[in-house]
Amino acid sequence: MAERRPLITLTTDFGEADYYVPAMKGVLYTINPAAEIIDLTHQVPPHDIYAAAFTLLCCYSDFPKMTLHVVVVDPGVGSKRRPILVMTDNYNFIGPDNGVFSYVYQRERVNRIVHFNQEHYFRAPVSNTFHGRDIFAACAAYVSKLVDWSKMGEEISDPVRFNTPKPSVVSDRQVRGHVIHVDRFGNVITNITTAEVSAERLQRARVRVGTHEAARVLTHYAEANPNELFAYIGSAGFLELAVSRQSAARMTEARRGIEVEVVMP
Amino acid sequence: MAERRPLITLTTDFGEADYYVPAMKGVLYTINPAAEIIDLTHQVPPHDIYAAAFTLLCCYSDFPKMTLHVVVVDPGVGSKRRPILVMTDNYNFIGPDNGVFSYVYQRERVNRIVHFNQEHYFRAPVSNTFHGRDIFAACAAYVSKLVDWSKMGEEISDPVRFNTPKPSVVSDRQVRGHVIHVDRFGNVITNITTAEVSAERLQRARVRVGTHEAARVLTHYAEANPNELFAYIGSAGFLELAVSRQSAARMTEARRGIEVEVVMP
Amino acid sequence: MAERRPLITLTTDFGEADYYVPAMKGVLYTINPAAEIIDLTHQVPPHDIYAAAFTLLCCYSDFPKMTLHVVVVDPGVGSKRRPILVMTDNYNFIGPDNGVFSYVYQRERVNRIVHFNQEHYFRAPVSNTFHGRDIFAACAAYVSKLVDWSKMGEEISDPVRFNTPKPSVVSDRQVRGHVIHVDRFGNVITNITTAEVSAERLQRARVRVGTHEAARVLTHYAEANPNELFAYIGSAGFLELAVSRQSAARMTEARRGIEVEVVMP
Repeated sequence: MAERRPLITLTTDFGEADYYVPAMKGVLYTINPAAEIIDLTHQVPPHDIYAAAFTLLCCYSDFPKMTLHVVVVDPGVGSKRRPILVMTDNYNFIGPDNGVFSYVYQRERVNRIVHFNQEHYFRAPVSNTFHGRDIFAACAAYVSKLVDWSKMGEEISDPVRFNTPKPSVVSDRQVRGHVIHVDRFGNVITNITTAEVSAERLQRARVRVGTHEAARVLTHYAEANPNELFAYIGSAGFLELAVSRQSAARMTEARRGIEVEVVMP
Repeated sequence: MAERRPLITLTTDFGEADYYVPAMKGVLYTINPAAEIIDLTHQVPPHDIYAAAFTLLCCYSDFPKMTLHVVVVDPGVGSKRRPILVMTDNYNFIGPDNGVFSYVYQRERVNRIVHFNQEHYFRAPVSNTFHGRDIFAACAAYVSKLVDWSKMGEEISDPVRFNTPKPSVVSDRQVRGHVIHVDRFGNVITNITTAEVSAERLQRARVRVGTHEAARVLTHYAEANPNELFAYIGSAGFLELAVSRQSAARMTEARRGIEVEVVMP
Repeated sequence: MAERRPLITLTTDFGEADYYVPAMKGVLYTINPAAEIIDLTHQVPPHDIYAAAFTLLCCYSDFPKMTLHVVVVDPGVGSKRRPILVMTDNYNFIGPDNGVFSYVYQRERVNRIVHFNQEHYFRAPVSNTFHGRDIFAACAAYVSKLVDWSKMGEEISDPVRFNTPKPSVVSDRQVRGHVIHVDRFGNVITNITTAEVSAERLQRARVRVGTHEAARVLTHYAEANPNELFAYIGSAGFLELAVSRQSAARMTEARRGIEVEVVMP
């Protein structure tokens, strides 16, 4: 069998209209012709590290073990924020040290975090505004070629983390969380999981988002009545709200940060 | 020469902003590292199985023989609609049994339709809302690894078909059809083909869409005058209407379902 | 080591919603199964050969040497405009002869320009409206298989060029140019480079776009104050204007063609 090509995924806020993403791919292929590059998404809202962190969280572990996930959502490009490599038991991650890997630090066993500081592995000259190409893509290509991390930078122990929002269990009957994402269909994704509310108790619970209350908790979309706001456990393991073939976000005016409450009988 | 990697195309209504498409790709690559995945499109309007069927129709046969085409436009996800594999002489297709392969049934010699019902080949646990990842991607990966279909499900003979709209030949001089698609440029694509109107007779015909009439029938865009609505046989073999460097759909207010009439001298 | 797969990039104005791009890829893979296809962008504004030329300019040279860059922004499709292959020392290019390679002619040593006129290498039948599939993809696949150019067409010496806009050095202290692109973030890209204004003198210069003046010239985004219009040398080597986390294009109403002036002390 042919040897496996090293997989590299790309997550950015560059969109697909400009030269930014293909420039990164060009650099990757130039340094490591064997790389197999997969777009995770390039439609992260500009500078939104929370959205990037959430999207990565929901799918990074579906990829083959030791896939290298590269995230370039980098409002601090050109400043002193560090370009880093996060090495875990299962996956490697490359991106700016701005908190975008906060969920990874929670979920994976981190073996090492490396601050890339060896210009030898950068694309020269390094621009002040496009480290996606000049640092992240170049270093990702070298990592995928199994260059030793200790040649590329030095270990750090104080990565930036943002406060990954946790729901609060107010009482045995009441959990409060909030909206962490709205997807393309207008489905409203909350930070409440079955860790806080068992799937069984959830079936009989009342779910409120902002000033709107879900009519029912269902197990799948097809059970829903037209125009009915319903709740369910989504495919990423989070409590979500939806309206069949419509946008729940539009109906409820929900957006990231809006409060969500579950009250059980 | 290197062995050919099995080609898998993906057609969904998931868009490219969320984790849905990369999650599918991650599952595919995890099960079959040799897969070569090509995006057909992820911009099918949400839940629009007609648009997905049309887009697939226009390009599936441009791919190498035995490419596996996976379509996930699945408003019935979580209900009892069946996940199926359609095996034809030339291509294989995987998707929900909701009619999305109606054109395929017309054009290809179907050898077998298999209802995937063996959970062993699904990603576990199967969510209620994301069969694109848990069933369709997983089963597609196994099919691309040449797992025997009879292990993965059982043959069925009653697939769902939607009524693929056919034009009506009203008289020797008159054909009525309707708009089946509007593309990015605002070109208006009808279901009338050279089977109903010979290219030669079409040259002298009058073409009406809704209440607007094409000024002329042309053979290519570059012949058109500015602001002129013209008709021509498009690259997928259908009669289309366009306006040079403008949107014919906007000018004519045409959308899917609007009547189109061809009257020949 | 495995043999390198031939790299082919695609730049079009087809968008990603329709069957145009996958049809091209299907034809490419059918003729050359070993091809490795990379999307440069499909979001060139419809028929905008200037935008296509600019996007290509900014990243084609980041790809491995001898990558084949295919550009299909082709308002003259179906007319007599020629389909061409541009062979240079470092890269090959395929597209319509409409000026889209004007920057390439400036920057690369062109060894030969070939007019594809041998229908044997086209997809049959050739439609009048989709040469991206029928001519450009098919010929690109054969070129990537190293078919001899002299079998596919004949050499020409009069390719179409558009006037690639050059800034004018009004005096030792004053340079005038104009906006050549606006990107997704609203950054405003001008045609002025360090060839006209040294990076050092630029630091103390005044930069005006339309009726707006940049508050400062910076080296990277992170130095900027909120709401401050600033100028800098961007990652493609051009003088750009931006506003931190906002759209400079919206603030300044800049669009392609608007005058830009640099005045040095």
